[in-house]
Amino acid sequence: MDRKYDELMTYVEKMQALGMAQGLFGWDLETEAPREAAALTARMMGSLSSQYFDILTSPQVGELLCQAAEEELDEAQKAILRELAKERDRLCRIPAEEYREYAELTAGATQIWARAKENNDFASFAPVLTRIAEMSARIAGYSKKEGQSAYDAMLWQYEEGFGRDVLDPFFALLREHIVPLLRAVMESGRAVDAGPLHRSFDIDKQRQFNRYLAEYVGFDFGRGVMGESEHPFTIGLHNRDVRITTHYYENLLESAMFSTIHEAGHAVYEMNVDDALTLTPVAGGASCGMHESQSRLMENMIGRSPAFWEPLYPKLQELFADELAGVSAGEFVRMINRVSPSLIRTEADELTYCLHVLIRYEIEKDLIDGSLQVKELPQVWNDKYEEYLGVRPLTDTEGVLQDIHWSQGSIGYFPSYALGNAFAAQIYRAMDREIDVESCLRRGEISRITEWLKEKVHRFGRVKPAQELLREATGEEFNPRYYIDYLTEKFTGLYGLK
Amino acid sequence: MDRKYDELMTYVEKMQALGMAQGLFGWDLETEAPREAAALTARMMGSLSSQYFDILTSPQVGELLCQAAEEELDEAQKAILRELAKERDRLCRIPAEEYREYAELTAGATQIWARAKENNDFASFAPVLTRIAEMSARIAGYSKKEGQSAYDAMLWQYEEGFGRDVLDPFFALLREHIVPLLRAVMESGRAVDAGPLHRSFDIDKQRQFNRYLAEYVGFDFGRGVMGESEHPFTIGLHNRDVRITTHYYENLLESAMFSTIHEAGHAVYEMNVDDALTLTPVAGGASCGMHESQSRLMENMIGRSPAFWEPLYPKLQELFADELAGVSAGEFVRMINRVSPSLIRTEADELTYCLHVLIRYEIEKDLIDGSLQVKELPQVWNDKYEEYLGVRPLTDTEGVLQDIHWSQGSIGYFPSYALGNAFAAQIYRAMDREIDVESCLRRGEISRITEWLKEKVHRFGRVKPAQELLREATGEEFNPRYYIDYLTEKFTGLYGLK
Repeated sequence: MDRKYDELMTYVEKMQALGMAQGLFGWDLETEAPREAAALTARMMGSLSSQYFDILTSPQVGELLCQAAEEELDEAQKAILRELAKERDRLCRIPAEEYREYAELTAGATQIWARAKENNDFASFAPVLTRIAEMSARIAGYSKKEGQSAYDAMLWQYEEGFGRDVLDPFFALLREHIVPLLRAVMESGRAVDAGPLHRSFDIDKQRQFNRYLAEYVGFDFGRGVMGESEHPFTIGLHNRDVRITTHYYENLLESAMFSTIHEAGHAVYEMNVDDALTLTPVAGGASCGMHESQSRLMENMIGRSPAFWEPLYPKLQELFADELAGVSAGEFVRMINRVSPSLIRTEADELTYCLHVLIRYEIEKDLIDGSLQVKELPQVWNDKYEEYLGVRPLTDTEGVLQDIHWSQGSIGYFPSYALGNAFAAQIYRAMDREIDVESCLRRGEISRITEWLKEKVHRFGRVKPAQELLREATGEEFNPRYYIDYLTEKFTGLYGLK
Repeated sequence: MDRKYDELMTYVEKMQALGMAQGLFGWDLETEAPREAAALTARMMGSLSSQYFDILTSPQVGELLCQAAEEELDEAQKAILRELAKERDRLCRIPAEEYREYAELTAGATQIWARAKENNDFASFAPVLTRIAEMSARIAGYSKKEGQSAYDAMLWQYEEGFGRDVLDPFFALLREHIVPLLRAVMESGRAVDAGPLHRSFDIDKQRQFNRYLAEYVGFDFGRGVMGESEHPFTIGLHNRDVRITTHYYENLLESAMFSTIHEAGHAVYEMNVDDALTLTPVAGGASCGMHESQSRLMENMIGRSPAFWEPLYPKLQELFADELAGVSAGEFVRMINRVSPSLIRTEADELTYCLHVLIRYEIEKDLIDGSLQVKELPQVWNDKYEEYLGVRPLTDTEGVLQDIHWSQGSIGYFPSYALGNAFAAQIYRAMDREIDVESCLRRGEISRITEWLKEKVHRFGRVKPAQELLREATGEEFNPRYYIDYLTEKFTGLYGLK
């Protein structure tokens, strides 16, 4: 083995195997593992994680990283070194004792959160959340760049380049446009009755249609598995093993369908990553926001469009002949696009979704800079929901306790959900200039869309940073105006606000 | 950390996590993984395996093993050191280059075997098998004891203390009794018509009954998962996560049922291992043969007995009212105990099963001592089937190519299947002296049986060597006479040979 790069890759292969094993355990715990397995399995997952940590932070890997950087490398190899070095640097700055303490804290916190949510008992979660907020801010602080706040460093962990300097104006723009647009929609007097979607839909038939739907939007069952779990998610083990879940409700036809399209959007991204990149540190998506752009683009801009349903709705109606009798394609599309401000982010409609994210962003910012105490969260949360969405939670279960993220230490993650929408709108517009997306959808030629996305976005994995990828795919820098225009045009049209 | 033993356990935890991950990947590949995942996943499994190897053979672990042995330890801790030292010693004796070569050889061989079996093309498998036989004999030779042959060392890997010195007389005894008993059965003129078991049995109903059956014989679904795969198997990740599979055939009612009982027998063993032992090197069964004794005892001695079906058959008949109409419990029990010499080991009846194993034992012995060439195997195989069972394979697919074992390098494993039967008969007899097994079964009180087995066998895991465990559970040394008596009594009775 002459090249240091190749020697470094022998360590990378070990880390990949450990990471992939953790991924499979994660999938298994959510989908199939027996009830009583969790505690012992978590201990073993902890061991895999610390073995990963030990390899990445070892002096050998540090030395090889320096030596390999001197060798002649292609773009992908340089990106692999970049990602390894970044992660290694981040981990090495954290005192080992603190890292272990934080891992234990978050490992136990999710259960405490789950119980608190179940019992509508924020007080029992507050001390853990206080500790998580403190520790994650301190840990992020070790890696912060010149001039950054701790919260900026936390934001960068998920979306490099998108600190408060970018997000403050971004969310201000969303707020400025979405809040009045929502008010206009609500005052339009054009409420949509979605009653038919709440009829009783046989779960087995739903399974059949959702499988069809996943395949239709590009999910390759030769390289993927579709399972069921409480909360839908996607996990990519490598580009030939990508898994999604959905969750079926008998009286909510659309829930599983749009989860399936959403997760399939994530999955197709992972399946389309170049063979040369899979099982390397640049195999995943370019960033959280870029990943989310592919799921939101598929779920909303594609999956809720009239053109998408033109070839598909007859099949759905055929399968549920009684339940959807008398519901036209046009009515169906209006139902799946209805605006209805609600308390729960994951069930939000397309127009109000980013307001849920905005609320979390504002709260996290104040929490981390110290101007907001954990004990004040429920009150502030409820006030903001009332202000932006016109609804007020009656319990913390459907308020501040609804999301799992903070219990896992993921503070700073939420904004990537909103960025994903904005990236998606910008990408859609660029794609639509090159291929007529609506015509493709009407003809059922969705592969022309996924091929375009593969060519411009997916195949690069994490080789290019998200901002660069966006620029190259769309021809311009990040521009949230596309998203504002998209929402305005769509909902102005649907609710006759012209 | 003062004690060297505790320090050693930090390495053991890493190895356990790596081993458990491999176990989960194995389960996943057989049950759920997408078709195209295998190659990349195999590479990652190889990495986990070599990380395991690196830890166990590291100088640190060697030193800690020596130091910990000087400390005050309880029986389980001593057993853990014993098992670790044995496995470390075995691996350290194998030149690293040879170990890697052998791992690659067997990793690729299973696919070559599968294709050869599919195409009835022994010649295409012969070169790989030749190489496997050579290498596995050489590798086993590194660990052989004074006076042992290479084949003895291979046998000991699976069943310590059971080399040719024990197995030659054991198999001679089986042959001496089973061959004439089989002849008498075949000449009794009392053929059993099992036609009703080949009617069409709805798979979903079979699933329902098999789940019930697994739970009935002690499989705890809070700690276990039941899946489906081509070939049924059991895998224990720890004592709170044990998984079995079965395989359903519409026209073979008994196939899935007895696979389920068999695998549940293995699983209950793993579930009943003491909490203090799980996730240690002594968590599994005492030996391959002892593990097999628990599955065969449950499948045959319990699961095919009239007493077992007395409370259960009405439920089966209720579920398949049309299909089993007019089939009495007595007739059903005769059908599931019918003797019918056949070509395939895994489908063999209880009386002929050990003859299939005997044939493999004789062939392996000659193959490893060099008196038989791989190219002669098909001919010898077919001749022995004709001699012992009175049936002759028309193809190698249903002859010498039927089993996966040799392609995986498992030469010397087969005898543990026969030993399992003999251990089971001896254990059954001891248990029957303390609790009246048939009465328990008639009253549906199978938990009294599993409790006895847990107390006497299961809870010890691998702490006691199999021979010692057998002696303590039954009050005497290994005695295959119990098995001969059991078979003779059972089939003499069933076929009116008195």
